[in-house]
This record gives sequence, structure tokens and C-alpha cells, in this order.
Amino acid sequence: MMVGSDRITDQAMTAEREMEKKMSIKYCSICGAKMTTRIPEDDDHIRPVCNRCGHVHYDNPKLVVGCIPMLEDQVLLCKRNIEPRKGKWTLPAGYLENGETVEQGAVRETLEETRSHVSIIAPYRMFNLVFVHQIYLMFRARLLDTDFGPTKESTDVQLFSESEIPWDNIAFESIRQTLADFFSDRPGRAYSFEIKQIMPPEKHAGPA
Amino acid sequence: MMVGSDRITDQAMTAEREMEKKMSIKYCSICGAKMTTRIPEDDDHIRPVCNRCGHVHYDNPKLVVGCIPMLEDQVLLCKRNIEPRKGKWTLPAGYLENGETVEQGAVRETLEETRSHVSIIAPYRMFNLVFVHQIYLMFRARLLDTDFGPTKESTDVQLFSESEIPWDNIAFESIRQTLADFFSDRPGRAYSFEIKQIMPPEKHAGPA
Repeated sequence: MMVGSDRITDQAMTAEREMEKKMSIKYCSICGAKMTTRIPEDDDHIRPVCNRCGHVHYDNPKLVVGCIPMLEDQVLLCKRNIEPRKGKWTLPAGYLENGETVEQGAVRETLEETRSHVSIIAPYRMFNLVFVHQIYLMFRARLLDTDFGPTKESTDVQLFSESEIPWDNIAFESIRQTLADFFSDRPGRAYSFEIKQIMPPEKHAGPA
Repeated sequence: MMVGSDRITDQAMTAEREMEKKMSIKYCSICGAKMTTRIPEDDDHIRPVCNRCGHVHYDNPKLVVGCIPMLEDQVLLCKRNIEPRKGKWTLPAGYLENGETVEQGAVRETLEETRSHVSIIAPYRMFNLVFVHQIYLMFRARLLDTDFGPTKESTDVQLFSESEIPWDNIAFESIRQTLADFFSDRPGRAYSFEIKQIMPPEKHAGPA
């Protein structure tokens, strides 16, 4: 889903910007009246609330689901055709949609971004990306066909063995860590599920 | 967060009701103009779109985070003071908020619903509740104090050993399964992370 991937951004969102985002909710989506920002009754978070009908606008973190499509000693990567990080390589992943399980979402995103089918093996990594209100959930998956190729969302789709991975050209830190952990776990085939945290780019910037 | 828990409902949401929900988004929250429902450009889902400014309204599944607060051979349950399932027992859980990790969300919900502090041990269960657009993530946690007690959200908070669990009076199927799995795994201390699916109440109704 191109729009979903498009909405994935890794810009740091400070408390100030978060408030700005809340202030951008100017009108009630139910009755059309002006919204204010305040703490609703029985709540403890500031949220946009309708002055007329009382409707509260909630904004919660979104789940990004994806996978490592594996074929023998190779994994399938796709080259992003969408900003942010257009031209960089990534694993297939995108926003979970209503009406699907996390596994179905990962399979769908893989099909949309690589044209290939996978079967989910097991959950592998979760990442907290607090600064962009995203939770990543990455699965290990078996690549079922080799009919992969470019899509609207990917200019290139290719299999890579560990030594071929374009480490300096990976789109997101969550994806880089997923791949690094996977190839580190691979010799012992000990793929336990772990939750990790990704810090804003500013915070881990410095001598690389 | 009372409002968050309040929004948790286990009613089946059919495709028809889902469309109704989309149709309820009548006005653009950014510019106040009328919305229509259609497939936006480069998308493949029907969504509310603004006729004037082009703003697209996204609605994605929400993450519910919670835990099993453990103290020796007991777990801490709370009696719901909020609909749905007011008066039924449950584990502390609620919607993940922007600005927190999944672990922090589980700790916060436990404090809000039981007044007690926990330290997170490990992720234990995830549940797909496709029919209500929710993904549950339940952790095992260590209860750090016994100063628990009633809160705005819970009329009663108590420790239960396995034989004392009010199995016929558990608020949600996801919570009942988490508890059943936990006490099943407990003798061998083999608590592996698993993802399961909860079907709508209608679909698993029948001779109990």
C-alpha cells in the first residue's frame, strides 16, 4: 500500500511537534464544529475535543508489519520508490490495515512491494519507535516463489546473501538491526523474539 | 486511562459496520469541508477523503498493551468499573499512547488500574482481534509492591492463585486465554512468545 509506506517517516517528533499535530485537528470529523485541545473528562491526556458534540479525537501509535523473506542463504530486499529514503534498500513492511491479522499484513505488504508470496514462520523482532509513534513487528518468512520484481513501490527487488547486503544503503535503522540480528542468529538457528528500541536519528548520531 | 479502556469493545464489527464507521467521518478535521469515501490515488483501500483539501482519514488497528503481574504463585486481577464487561475480572491492559514504548504502556496501565508497580519480564502473548481492529500484547511482569487497591477503573484488585481464578467471570477471551496459557506453561517455566487469534463471540459460540 503505497500511501501507507509513504506515511512512514523517521523524523524526530518532539513534544512540541506532537502538540502542533494535535492543534492541526481543527474541525470535528463528526459534526464539523471547531475543536479545542484539552484533557477530556476521566482522561489524563490532552486531546482534541469538539466544542459542540463532545467528540474526542484519539491518535495512537501505528503498527508496521513486515518480514524477512528467506530463500536458502539469501533474503529478499526491495529498493524504495517512495520518499522517505527513496532509492534505499529495505525489507517489505508497511502499516497494518483494519480487517487483517499481523501475519496477513506482513504477507500483503510483501506481495505489494516485491510481487512475491511468503509464508510466515515466526515473529522475530519488535521495535519501539516512540519518536514517530510506530511499533514495528518483523517476522521471519519463507519465500515461496521467485517471481519477484519491481512494483509501484519498489524500483528493484533482489535476493542478497549476507556478504552482498548493501549495509551502507539500508533505508531504516529498524530494518538494518533486523538484518544484522538475523545474520548474527543464523549460524546457531537461535531466532528468539525480542523487543528493542530505536532512538531518534539525532540521539545516536556521532562518529559512526 | 479510563477512556482508553472504555473504547475497548468486543462486539463483532462486520464489513457493513466498518463502512458505517467510515461514513461517520463526515467533515475534514483539517479544513472543515465535507468528506467522501473513495479509494485515494496510489491506494487500494476505501477511505474518507476531503473534497476540498484532499486530506485522507486513516483508521488503523490499535495496540492494547497489558501484563500478568506475578507475585510468587499468584497473579493480580482487577474487577472492571467500566463498560463493557463492568463487574468482570481482567488483567491490567489498555491502549498504547503516543510517546511511550509498549513496555511503558503496560506498566502505566497496571498503575492506573491497580495502583501497583510492576517490572516487565518478557512478552508472552499477542492476539489478533481483527473484528474490533485491536492487537493485544501481553507481558509477564513482576509485581513490585502490594499497595494495590481499587482505582477509578477497578472496583476491586486482588491476588489470585491458579485455583482461585474466577474462570467463569473473566471479562475478555484474550485475557482468559492469557491466564490459561500462563498457568499451563508455569510448571515447566517454558514461557515462549506466541501470536494467537481471537474470533468474534458469535463464531465460537455453541456448547461450552
